[in-house]
Amino acid sequence: MHRPTVFLTPDLLIERLGVRVTLAVEVFQRTGSFKFRAAYNVARNVSNPHLLTASSGNFGQALALAAKLTGKGCTVVMPATSSAVKIESVRGYGATVDLIDTTKVTREDRVAQLARENPEAYVASPFDDELVVAGNASLGIEIATHAQAFDFVVAPVGGGGLAAGLVRGLYEGGSAADVVGAEPALGNDFARSMREGRRLANEQEPQTLADGARTRQVGVLNWEILSRSIHEVIEVPEAAIRNGVRDLFRLANLKSEPTGALAVGAVATRPDLFAGKNVCCVVSGGNVDPALYAEVIASA
Amino acid sequence: MHRPTVFLTPDLLIERLGVRVTLAVEVFQRTGSFKFRAAYNVARNVSNPHLLTASSGNFGQALALAAKLTGKGCTVVMPATSSAVKIESVRGYGATVDLIDTTKVTREDRVAQLARENPEAYVASPFDDELVVAGNASLGIEIATHAQAFDFVVAPVGGGGLAAGLVRGLYEGGSAADVVGAEPALGNDFARSMREGRRLANEQEPQTLADGARTRQVGVLNWEILSRSIHEVIEVPEAAIRNGVRDLFRLANLKSEPTGALAVGAVATRPDLFAGKNVCCVVSGGNVDPALYAEVIASA
Repeated sequence: MHRPTVFLTPDLLIERLGVRVTLAVEVFQRTGSFKFRAAYNVARNVSNPHLLTASSGNFGQALALAAKLTGKGCTVVMPATSSAVKIESVRGYGATVDLIDTTKVTREDRVAQLARENPEAYVASPFDDELVVAGNASLGIEIATHAQAFDFVVAPVGGGGLAAGLVRGLYEGGSAADVVGAEPALGNDFARSMREGRRLANEQEPQTLADGARTRQVGVLNWEILSRSIHEVIEVPEAAIRNGVRDLFRLANLKSEPTGALAVGAVATRPDLFAGKNVCCVVSGGNVDPALYAEVIASA
Repeated sequence: MHRPTVFLTPDLLIERLGVRVTLAVEVFQRTGSFKFRAAYNVARNVSNPHLLTASSGNFGQALALAAKLTGKGCTVVMPATSSAVKIESVRGYGATVDLIDTTKVTREDRVAQLARENPEAYVASPFDDELVVAGNASLGIEIATHAQAFDFVVAPVGGGGLAAGLVRGLYEGGSAADVVGAEPALGNDFARSMREGRRLANEQEPQTLADGARTRQVGVLNWEILSRSIHEVIEVPEAAIRNGVRDLFRLANLKSEPTGALAVGAVATRPDLFAGKNVCCVVSGGNVDPALYAEVIASA
């Protein structure tokens, strides 16, 4: 089962932002990100004995542990160029890692091939799946039932599974808070989609520091939910993502991965929108390469 | 008022240590360390309009905020060589910083001089004061009343105020857990004191990485409590302190200052003592210089 989120109200960060923020911290969630909520909900609700996904990031680790806890097998397709620490991490949770040369085969094709070889396997999408949205909704319910009522809940948007889950969970939990998306400006497919009223895609995987949001577009199911319900999308510049990581470190004593700092970066980018409001920022995960993190926090 | 501690049970850290540890995390306490518990208890219980202390570390920040919250003045004597970030931090909480040249005047002499000039001021010891022990006892009560019962509570020992407070609070809260001290091997006055049965001092301030434990000896009051009640003192080598910081970062997504990692370092140093037990490790604070932290986490 997932762990409850940790709510923090860091004095110095609040002072710096000039906004009454509460952090909903998922860096201490099992496997270090909110993704475990979705992965575990998939694992316990499908009858298949094996789980299969393509992920070089948090969903791979989350699904690996979820499979282990529910007694299922698990295969995670990862690019051979993934960092050793990420590969070891997925293996450490007991999954089989299938390394591919992405110049020769796409992740999708490799997953399809493995699915044909193992017809009993459930192919788990990291974000576009009813069970994923339902799993992430658990965080929305926790935020809705927190002692502090919120006007806004700000969360990163990559594939949109977290934001869609929050919309669902806040509603289920009886909260009237609006969800605001925080998207890297470098990969602003969702912001553009909202402006044009249809689901667009980035031409290629955007090379933002927020590697958890390097998706080409939001999922079909998520688009259906978010296009009707999201209050606003804030396009967060790379510098604000870096500052977010640094501010969380210096002013909140909190280790966040770049994607986890998107919501705080969004508040810093658009303080006008949040002035005088009670704002919950979701810090979605904490898994970050030590060398990268060291570089970001030590820079001026 | 202080914030409740945050309890965490990080899977990967537990696996690495081979011990069922729960972390009692004080890095999200107001001003970033457990010291605020003591400082606030001092500030609200003395009638003096001004608080005065010597501290280059967490107690200075804690007392500064405690004074602000209780409407008192505050002066913190600090060496002129203190890092700019620490000086700014104390000032940021609204206190007056009194910088001294420690080659010309000792902190104690300067505090005594200021106390004579301002007879209404209360001179607050960072660790040797009944109000400090009572403030820190609040953490012991929280641990005692946590859902998980513990066999051991492991905490850093510098001046001994935290460990003494834990002994008191655990007793008040009805816990039978034993308190184990985690002391830097480089400054092992307390371990030597326990062996000899009398309060000894380090000849000079030990230059351990755990700067919150750079005390010459434990306080008189704390010695009285700890010499009767501490279960054991573990002398933690510098390498284990560094590893503790790194393990908390990599395996628990937790930012800790070196002093905060002493308890985890102690468990890693003496796994035999903790095998099969339920162990609560106090992560006492998270305030650490970014450049130092970057160096520690990025090293192999």
